[in-house]
Amino acid sequence: MKMQIGWDRDAARQNRSRLGTKGSRAVIAAGLFIGAAAMSGRADEGMWLVNKPPMKQLKNKYGFEPKREWLEHVQKSAVRLGSGGSGSIVSADGLVMTNHHVGSDNLEKLSTPERDLLKTGFLAKTRADEVKCDDLEIMALWTIEDVTERVKGAAAAGMSTADANTARRKMMSTIEQEAEEKTKLDCQVVTLYQGGMYHLYGYKRYTDIRLVFAPEQQAAYFGGDNDNFEYPRFCLDVCFFRIYENDRPLKSEHHLKWSKNGSADGDAIFVLGHPGRTRRLYTADHLRFLRDNEVPSVLRQLWRREVQLQSFSGRGDENARIAKGDLFGVQNSRKAWTGIMAGLHDPEIWKRKLEDEKKLRAFVDGNPDRKGQWGDAWDKISAAQKTYREFYLRHRTRGGSSTLAGIARDLVRLAEEKTKPNADRLREYRDTELDSLFLDLYSPAPIYDDLEIDRMASGYSYWAETFGGEDPLVAKLLGGKSPRDRAESLVRNTKLKDVEVRKKIAEGGQEAIKNSTDPLIKLAVETDPEFRAVRKRYEDEIEAAERDGYAKIAAAQFALYGEDLYPDATFTLRLAYGSAKGYKEDGHVVAPFSTLAGTYKRSEERKGAPPFDLPQRWIDGKSKLRLDTPYNFVSTADIIGGNSGSPVINKAGEVVGLIFDGNIQSLVLDIAYTEEQARALAVDSRAIIECLRKLYDAGSLADEIERS
Amino acid sequence: MKMQIGWDRDAARQNRSRLGTKGSRAVIAAGLFIGAAAMSGRADEGMWLVNKPPMKQLKNKYGFEPKREWLEHVQKSAVRLGSGGSGSIVSADGLVMTNHHVGSDNLEKLSTPERDLLKTGFLAKTRADEVKCDDLEIMALWTIEDVTERVKGAAAAGMSTADANTARRKMMSTIEQEAEEKTKLDCQVVTLYQGGMYHLYGYKRYTDIRLVFAPEQQAAYFGGDNDNFEYPRFCLDVCFFRIYENDRPLKSEHHLKWSKNGSADGDAIFVLGHPGRTRRLYTADHLRFLRDNEVPSVLRQLWRREVQLQSFSGRGDENARIAKGDLFGVQNSRKAWTGIMAGLHDPEIWKRKLEDEKKLRAFVDGNPDRKGQWGDAWDKISAAQKTYREFYLRHRTRGGSSTLAGIARDLVRLAEEKTKPNADRLREYRDTELDSLFLDLYSPAPIYDDLEIDRMASGYSYWAETFGGEDPLVAKLLGGKSPRDRAESLVRNTKLKDVEVRKKIAEGGQEAIKNSTDPLIKLAVETDPEFRAVRKRYEDEIEAAERDGYAKIAAAQFALYGEDLYPDATFTLRLAYGSAKGYKEDGHVVAPFSTLAGTYKRSEERKGAPPFDLPQRWIDGKSKLRLDTPYNFVSTADIIGGNSGSPVINKAGEVVGLIFDGNIQSLVLDIAYTEEQARALAVDSRAIIECLRKLYDAGSLADEIERS
Repeated sequence: MKMQIGWDRDAARQNRSRLGTKGSRAVIAAGLFIGAAAMSGRADEGMWLVNKPPMKQLKNKYGFEPKREWLEHVQKSAVRLGSGGSGSIVSADGLVMTNHHVGSDNLEKLSTPERDLLKTGFLAKTRADEVKCDDLEIMALWTIEDVTERVKGAAAAGMSTADANTARRKMMSTIEQEAEEKTKLDCQVVTLYQGGMYHLYGYKRYTDIRLVFAPEQQAAYFGGDNDNFEYPRFCLDVCFFRIYENDRPLKSEHHLKWSKNGSADGDAIFVLGHPGRTRRLYTADHLRFLRDNEVPSVLRQLWRREVQLQSFSGRGDENARIAKGDLFGVQNSRKAWTGIMAGLHDPEIWKRKLEDEKKLRAFVDGNPDRKGQWGDAWDKISAAQKTYREFYLRHRTRGGSSTLAGIARDLVRLAEEKTKPNADRLREYRDTELDSLFLDLYSPAPIYDDLEIDRMASGYSYWAETFGGEDPLVAKLLGGKSPRDRAESLVRNTKLKDVEVRKKIAEGGQEAIKNSTDPLIKLAVETDPEFRAVRKRYEDEIEAAERDGYAKIAAAQFALYGEDLYPDATFTLRLAYGSAKGYKEDGHVVAPFSTLAGTYKRSEERKGAPPFDLPQRWIDGKSKLRLDTPYNFVSTADIIGGNSGSPVINKAGEVVGLIFDGNIQSLVLDIAYTEEQARALAVDSRAIIECLRKLYDAGSLADEIERS
Repeated sequence: MKMQIGWDRDAARQNRSRLGTKGSRAVIAAGLFIGAAAMSGRADEGMWLVNKPPMKQLKNKYGFEPKREWLEHVQKSAVRLGSGGSGSIVSADGLVMTNHHVGSDNLEKLSTPERDLLKTGFLAKTRADEVKCDDLEIMALWTIEDVTERVKGAAAAGMSTADANTARRKMMSTIEQEAEEKTKLDCQVVTLYQGGMYHLYGYKRYTDIRLVFAPEQQAAYFGGDNDNFEYPRFCLDVCFFRIYENDRPLKSEHHLKWSKNGSADGDAIFVLGHPGRTRRLYTADHLRFLRDNEVPSVLRQLWRREVQLQSFSGRGDENARIAKGDLFGVQNSRKAWTGIMAGLHDPEIWKRKLEDEKKLRAFVDGNPDRKGQWGDAWDKISAAQKTYREFYLRHRTRGGSSTLAGIARDLVRLAEEKTKPNADRLREYRDTELDSLFLDLYSPAPIYDDLEIDRMASGYSYWAETFGGEDPLVAKLLGGKSPRDRAESLVRNTKLKDVEVRKKIAEGGQEAIKNSTDPLIKLAVETDPEFRAVRKRYEDEIEAAERDGYAKIAAAQFALYGEDLYPDATFTLRLAYGSAKGYKEDGHVVAPFSTLAGTYKRSEERKGAPPFDLPQRWIDGKSKLRLDTPYNFVSTADIIGGNSGSPVINKAGEVVGLIFDGNIQSLVLDIAYTEEQARALAVDSRAIIECLRKLYDAGSLADEIERS
């Protein structure tokens, strides 16, 4: 699925700079098929905590018992990218491998109308040629500590659900701040099993990241939106960055070695990555909310924006260039959500969900103690969903994906939040988050007026379409103008394109905000109280109730199924496992491996028309390639958005591939695991080396990797 | 705007076969700018009844006083095409000129995977080579009779609003039936000025229509969705059909002559066509409903379907071919509605609307008689809109645009309606409408399973997205399956693809419906009562109230402004006027005429990438052309969707052009006329001849036209 998170600027901003945002609504693993899986011991299900791996399953199915050292080594070799994906360190000199589509945001920022890196690709011939990325951060999970008791203990008996939620949140901020002072790591309390468990993660954080290599987007994203989520595939969806510290390449003690032989059909493989979010525990009613409210609303926004971005791009080459990232993000998300929606309308999935829920509720209701402790959980969650329906749209509608409007809002909120004690702040303005915030806020990455106007006009118009022209907040957003005129006026008149202006306002605090005549700052000041109010309502009435309810359901699951469960995804490090394996589709067998030869065949079949056109380098270099080199492959590993760029490794911990997508049938993994057809897609390690050496004159980079 | 009506199959079916459907909610002309226009005498506003032309304006501004003969001649030379556009007869042998995009539905139906007429174009070398279209009908307005008193008289004093509405509708059916028996014309009572006036139109109807000529779609729609509604333009958006009667070309007494010299900047021109619908009289509250409910809902469906159709088309060439018509329709409508939405958010338009309404209401309230008669109109309409908000979505959401589902519904309804007296039937099943219905219902045009499945799955999924998976009607539509599985099963198992099966069911009446095991018939039987109920609720509670209210507002307008007003568009014949005239945009002047040379320049600028690629014939033939030939031009004529294919004529009644589009600024004409930038786009008559002769080897066709 181009397993990356976030389809709009706003979401990307949140993901990039804040570790736990995605996790704030995380829920524990339900394992829809957990009964079947446990019984048969065969399904490769689960996104497991790296410090709580599925030892039994690995041993039973793959005869593998990873040692503590193996686990620690791969944990510290895996990284997360601020732009919203996964990666791994693959040399002793801090070389980081991820997907092209994870790095493309930065490739776009480094491009100009005259030098479009997405078109041409990039290779640093020497280390001196490696180019610094403006606002990319990379994190490696270094320490894990269980802080469950301290967090849980913060909520005193007798507190209301909302107050208990607030108290726990404050305690999490306090723990993080203490830990950062002590360890100098970047610290984050992660809510697992929806309050069943709280872990303090300490990350090494790197911000001097330089671009080493990227192929042409044509090669990385061959087949485009047409082939996205399809298989077989032919994508060189890889790029390499390098981590620098003190202006020198990072001496990376932990890094993954490269496999000489790759993997073969049936071989055990492991995926280390940062799956963003799953909802496998959702109650049936919560899934109904997803199906009938949330997903339709998300899809509506995506369809709308996709068409608008295509119109924008159709106006000329430069428009197409600057909107490429937005368009890719929207199309990718649209396809992913379409797949999730299909799952939500699959009678088979409903049948199992209802049976699962019935079984668990019967277990709970069958015993007075259990009933007393957990019995009200389902109804509480249903009640919260019912309330949420009333203001869901108002909570989830954003003011567009404008970079400038996002900056204005951050400045306004930062000034206000900084006047509060750390633990009382909105979580993304805690002291421990400020480094990431500033990286983002002071990014010198280009901001294009035309695209900003288009984004902003689209956002304001969406507000008007959704809430009507008479809505008071809509009136504030529009300021007596049409959406386009308003956007035009705001973008042309704001000074926030200048990084120094942003710094000055940020440093000036509340006073600077009050005195600012910048139209975007003024608009943010005017509208932010309402955005804050709806967020608070959500946290108090919905999040708190869900957290409370799911904590109970989690406890009931532990009681019924035992402790051997994985938590729903939280955009933190997880271990998935499985094997390279084909599947059946429309009656025919889909083989697990594609080859480089297949690329040329597919391009011919589609007469070389975009997006099936090959880069000139590929056309000219065909004879140089070993065409039978395995190119992409599918495996049964349990992955989801956020896993983009995850290394695929073998039992020896060596890289055999690079996750870049899932097939259409895998999209349903958001709500339920199934092994029948759902597959993770990876670039084969052998194709990466073959292409680097034969097509891209990148022999020394290939040497560095293979030497690792 | 590709001034055609209707973006989905369902709408097209309605338009194709039923003359008055679009008129049923028609409202009288408000003339937002009527004060200013009347005072200055300068704006070229109005879509005038051909039997009530704006004599004063034409005389004052253009020194032209059309004679009765002139008016009758052009009236009888103008035609309407069942597929939803306008046209004109341009030779003594029944040659009909319209837009390529009006004829493209039929070009598509005549195409096969091996012979794609949209790609290759078509020229019948001899009359024997002219190809019959399966289900195209062409109508010429022959007689006009005022039946206002009879229709109004049908509603007895003291009747409820809903009953009065029903009584008038019945009377209209009775009048039509009587007239058809007497005149053998196709008769239709048209509601003008929203009940201020009722006219009985008698049409000559032709159904043996043969294709004569069409260029490549690449030439007709050069610039594609990018350039749609833009100017300058370079489109040969023309095609020719021929009307046959008794297997011979129609001897057309009335037909338009061809101008030798075309028109020049500032020349008076006239447009005869069938504008579909305008809403210039809408009250401010009604416009709010449009802005906040109706247009957002329409746009949501269009954005959604556009993305889905692009995905469908991306899967292969044959998919792209069979979905081309759907995609064009959706994109075209999306752009048009986007323009209307922009108008609905234009503060200037609101200012004038509110002033206009204030003035009229003050006039009404200023006098007790007037207040008693008309004073409650605005509040009544507002109250109806408020009620309508409750069930608007349910009324307007269709079961998708599936051809097969539409056939099933027609069969089920036809059987039931035929058991009722003519006047009591749903209007589209009146005896006077059955010929058109059967033309449609028994069309042997190809139906493609894959596209049908895609349409149907999309439709059912849309229902679920809109009303939720627990909705009883959604449950019936889905039948316990996912939307795609349901669609797949219905399409694969229905026998309605066979025209003979349709005929048998239609002839078998209620009994045949009852005994049918066809899954689509069964589904239609199961769901139709609810669709009928919501339609009835709309007619009784909304339509009746609006009709009542607008009739009062119309009367008040006549009292304030005099009788010299045109009615809002009703997809019936109208006369618009103006002159070729450029405009200013973003500070620069847009010249009124483009040339053939501009086509080549534009293609070069965009590097010949689709949709800016030229047909090979154009590339090879460049040197043969007089490149300074005027190609497209803009004029101030007041047009809207439905005007596609309208002839543009001069004072002598000779063809100087062919309407095919409006510019972006003209889209607002749906709700208000403005002459500042809004322009009608036409193909210049000189370019049509030049291309026929020099590029398409169609000399004898050009001769026939010029000889006319």
